[in-house]
Amino acid sequence: MPNHTDTYTQLTRHLHELHLLGSTISLLSWDQQTYRPIAAAAHRADQIAYFSKLHHELFTSPKVLGLIDELASGVAKDDSDQAVNVRELKRSSDRQRKLPTDLVEELSRNESLSQDAWIQAKKTSDFKTFSPWLEKLLSLKKRVADCYGYADSRYDALLDEYEPGASSREVAKVFESLREPLVKLVRTVTESGKRPPTAKLTGNWPRAAQEEFARRAATAVGFDFSAGRMDVSTHPFCTDLGSGDVRITTRFDDGFFAGSFYSVLHEVGHALYEQGLPVAKFPGLPRSQAISLGIHESQSRMWENLVGRSQAFWTHFFPIARELFGSRLDGVTPQELLFAVNDVRPSLIRTEADEITYNLHVLLRFEIEKDLIEDKLQVSDLPELWQTRMQKYLGIDVPDHARGCMQDIHWSAGLVGYFPTYTLGNLYSAQFFESANAELGDLNAMFAKGQFMPLLDWLRKNIHAPGKTYTATQLVQRVTGKPLSPEPLLRHLNAKVSQFYGA
Amino acid sequence: MPNHTDTYTQLTRHLHELHLLGSTISLLSWDQQTYRPIAAAAHRADQIAYFSKLHHELFTSPKVLGLIDELASGVAKDDSDQAVNVRELKRSSDRQRKLPTDLVEELSRNESLSQDAWIQAKKTSDFKTFSPWLEKLLSLKKRVADCYGYADSRYDALLDEYEPGASSREVAKVFESLREPLVKLVRTVTESGKRPPTAKLTGNWPRAAQEEFARRAATAVGFDFSAGRMDVSTHPFCTDLGSGDVRITTRFDDGFFAGSFYSVLHEVGHALYEQGLPVAKFPGLPRSQAISLGIHESQSRMWENLVGRSQAFWTHFFPIARELFGSRLDGVTPQELLFAVNDVRPSLIRTEADEITYNLHVLLRFEIEKDLIEDKLQVSDLPELWQTRMQKYLGIDVPDHARGCMQDIHWSAGLVGYFPTYTLGNLYSAQFFESANAELGDLNAMFAKGQFMPLLDWLRKNIHAPGKTYTATQLVQRVTGKPLSPEPLLRHLNAKVSQFYGA
Repeated sequence: MPNHTDTYTQLTRHLHELHLLGSTISLLSWDQQTYRPIAAAAHRADQIAYFSKLHHELFTSPKVLGLIDELASGVAKDDSDQAVNVRELKRSSDRQRKLPTDLVEELSRNESLSQDAWIQAKKTSDFKTFSPWLEKLLSLKKRVADCYGYADSRYDALLDEYEPGASSREVAKVFESLREPLVKLVRTVTESGKRPPTAKLTGNWPRAAQEEFARRAATAVGFDFSAGRMDVSTHPFCTDLGSGDVRITTRFDDGFFAGSFYSVLHEVGHALYEQGLPVAKFPGLPRSQAISLGIHESQSRMWENLVGRSQAFWTHFFPIARELFGSRLDGVTPQELLFAVNDVRPSLIRTEADEITYNLHVLLRFEIEKDLIEDKLQVSDLPELWQTRMQKYLGIDVPDHARGCMQDIHWSAGLVGYFPTYTLGNLYSAQFFESANAELGDLNAMFAKGQFMPLLDWLRKNIHAPGKTYTATQLVQRVTGKPLSPEPLLRHLNAKVSQFYGA
Repeated sequence: MPNHTDTYTQLTRHLHELHLLGSTISLLSWDQQTYRPIAAAAHRADQIAYFSKLHHELFTSPKVLGLIDELASGVAKDDSDQAVNVRELKRSSDRQRKLPTDLVEELSRNESLSQDAWIQAKKTSDFKTFSPWLEKLLSLKKRVADCYGYADSRYDALLDEYEPGASSREVAKVFESLREPLVKLVRTVTESGKRPPTAKLTGNWPRAAQEEFARRAATAVGFDFSAGRMDVSTHPFCTDLGSGDVRITTRFDDGFFAGSFYSVLHEVGHALYEQGLPVAKFPGLPRSQAISLGIHESQSRMWENLVGRSQAFWTHFFPIARELFGSRLDGVTPQELLFAVNDVRPSLIRTEADEITYNLHVLLRFEIEKDLIEDKLQVSDLPELWQTRMQKYLGIDVPDHARGCMQDIHWSAGLVGYFPTYTLGNLYSAQFFESANAELGDLNAMFAKGQFMPLLDWLRKNIHAPGKTYTATQLVQRVTGKPLSPEPLLRHLNAKVSQFYGA
C-alpha cells in the first residue's frame, strides 16, 4: 500500500518535529534547574510557555490528527513498529481530544494557582487555606476523568495517564497484600532496637570525593557519559534531551554521602532506561518511549536499591570508597557502612523514607486519593485520616499538616493517580530482578566482582529495547512468566530485615 | 491613529515570538559549546536547523512583512522608539527580500561545505584544494552584494551587514592613516630590544585562582552574575539569551593567566553592552539591539585594553592577584606583570596578536577582501600578496598558508566585510574613552581606586541605552562631538609604546 506508507512517512515527519520541539522544552527546563541566572526567570517562563503552545497546536492540528486516524483505521493490529506507533498515538490523541479546550485551560490555570497556594500555605502548615484549592482541583480532575471515561473506577481514568492500561482494582489487590507484611516488618525493625552507627558517619564528606565516587559508580553500572552528563540542581532529576543526550542531576550534602550517592544511582537507573530506548531510530515515536512511570521507576529502584544497597555492591565499591574518601573512612567497617545505607525507620516524610516504609507512605496516598476521586472521602476529613493511618502503618504521630497531608506537591500540581507508580516500580523491579537472577545466574556474585553489564544487557534486551511495544502488565507477564505479584518485593525486604535487624 | 497603533502592537507581538525563538536557538548553541554531550551532535544540529527555519519563515511571512511595510509608509521619521523599530525592521527585511531563495540556499550550502573544506585543507596547509571553494564563495558573495545594491563600492553592500551605514571609502581613509604610524610603532618596539620577563611568569597558574580572579574582576567592572554566567568553552564567546541572561565563556591555560583573563575582560565588555540594552522593554526589537559589530567590539576592547591593560587597573588589581595567586607571584613586581600583559611583538596569527599589531592584521585582510570583491585581485594571487604585506607591515615571513591566508575561518564561512569591524572597534573605543575621560575627569585615578562604575554608567547612558537609535557614524558624532578619527587610538598606542618600549 504505497499510499499508506506515504501517510505514515508524513506522520513520522511531524512527530520528528514534535520531538525537536519537545526536547528543546526539556533543555530549557534542564537549564532552568541547573544554570539559568535568577534574573532570567520571566523570560524562561515565556519561552517554555511559547514552545509548549506550539507543541500542543502541532500535535492537535487537524493535519496530524487526520494522519493518525487514517492510519489507525488501516494498520495491522500486531506488534510491528508501525502498528505500535499508530496504536499509541491513537491512544494519546484520543485522550487529548476527549478534553474540551476550556477544561484544559481551567485545569492548567488552577494547577498553577494551586501550586502557589500550596507553597504559601505549607509554610505555616495552613490546611484551611489550602483545602478549597485542593477541592477545586479534585473537582476538575473528576471532570477530566469523566471526559476520558472508564469501565470500573473513575480513578482508573486518571491512573491511565501514568500507568497505561493499569486497573486500580488490580493495583489495590496487590497493594493490600503488601500492607500487613510491611507493617509487620516495620514493627520487627523498631522492636529490634538495632541502629546503624550514624554518629561516626556524620559530617566531613568532601564534595569532590562524593562527586568522583558517584561518577565512578555511574560509569561502572553503564551510564554513558559521552551521551549524557551529571550536574547539580536543588531537586535531583533525569531528563532525556534527545538522541545521545540524557542528563541527570544530584545535590551534595557534606553531612553524609548516601543522600547524594543513592539519588545518583536512582537517576542513573532512569537514565539507563532512556539511553537504552531506540530514540535515534524512532525520534518522537512511541516505539522509542518508556512504557509507563511504574516501569521507569522499576529501573531507578533496581539500581538504587536491589543493586546499590546490596552487600555484593559494597564488596566491590568499599575499596573504591576508601580510596576516594581516604581518612574519612578510617575505623569504619564495610558492614557498618552497609548498615548505614540500609537504615530503616518510620519517619514523616515520604521522600526521605527508606526502602520499606516508603511503600507504606505510597499505600496511604493511593488509598486516600482513590477515595477522594470516587467521592468516598471529603477533603475536610483528610488530616484526621492521615494521622490515623500514619499511626496504624508506621506507628508515629503527625505533628502538623506540613509534615502530614500537605507535604507533597503532587495533588496541588494536579498529579492524581501518580503515587501508586512509585510502589509499582518497587514491585516490578523486585520481580524483574528475580527473573534476571534466575536467567543469568548469581547476580550478586557478579556485582561483587564489579560486573554490572550482564544485568544491564538483560534489562536492555527485555525492558528497554521494546519501548512502548507492550503495556506494563503484558511486559511483566512476558519477562517474568507471571502476573505482577507482591511476593518478590516481600522476599527481598524480608531478607533485608533478617540481615540487619534479625535476632 | 488607533489603527496604526494596532498594527504596531501586532508587529511587536510577532517580534516577541521571534525573540523567543531566537533566544532559544542561542541557548541550544550555548549548550552545544559548553555542556552538550558529544553523542548529541546530530540531534542538536537538527534542533538548530529546525528553529532557524521556523524563525526565518516567521520573519519573512507575508503577515509580518505586510505589517512592517504598512508601518514604514506611515511612521514618523524621528528618533522615537517606534520610529527606530520600524525603520530598522524595514531595513533588515528589505535586505532579506532582495535575496532570491535559491541564492540563500546555495550560499548556505556552500558555506557549510566550504568550512569543512577549510578545516581539512588547513591541516596540511593546502591552499590549492581550498582555493576553488574560496572562489566559489566569493562569487556567491558578489552576487549577494549585487542583489543588495550599492552606490559606491560593491564591498559596501557586504560591510553593511555588520556595520550598517558604513562606507568602505570612509573606512579605508581612516585605516590608511593608521597604517604608516602603526608600522613605525612596531619598528620602534622591535628595535628597542626590550622584552617583558616572560620566563619567570610562565607555568603553574592554578585554574581555581584564575577563575576566582576573573570573577572578581568581572564583578568589579559591573558584570551582573545574577543576570548572567561564566562557563568554559573551547573558544571564548558572549551570548545574549534574553532578558536577564547574558553569558560569557572562557578557557584556562595554566601556562599564563593572561590569555584567559583578558578573554574574560573582552567578553565582559560585550556582556556589559548586552546587559545595558533595554531588552526587557523592547524584546526582539531593534530599539534594544546593538548598533553594529564595530560598536560591540568597541565595548569589549575598551574593558580589555583601555581599562584592563592600564597601569591604573593593576594598581587596584595587583594586590588582589597577590592574594589569590599567592606564592606564584613571589618575586614578581607589579611593573613586570604590567609589562607582560602589554607584550608587543610581530606574530603570524591574528587572534594571538597584541593591541598594536592586531590592527595591521586587520588592515591587511580588509585591503585584500575589498580587492577580491571588487575584482581587483585574484584568489590565486592571495598567498604571495599575504607574504609581501606581512613583510611590509610586520617585518616577518609567512612559513605556510595555514599560518598565512588560511588561518581565519571568516572567508570560508562567508563572513566577508566582517574583519574591518575589529579595528573599527578599537578606533571607536579609543575615541569614546577620550570623551569619557574629558567628561568624567581622570578615569585612571578612579580605576586605581577600583572605581569602574563612573565609566560604565557613562557607557550605559551614551552607548548602551539608545540601542539602534543611531548608526555608528551618528553615535560617534553625538557622543564625541567629532567624526571617527585615527588620532585617539594612535595617541593611546603611542603612549603605550613610550611607556614600555621608550628610550
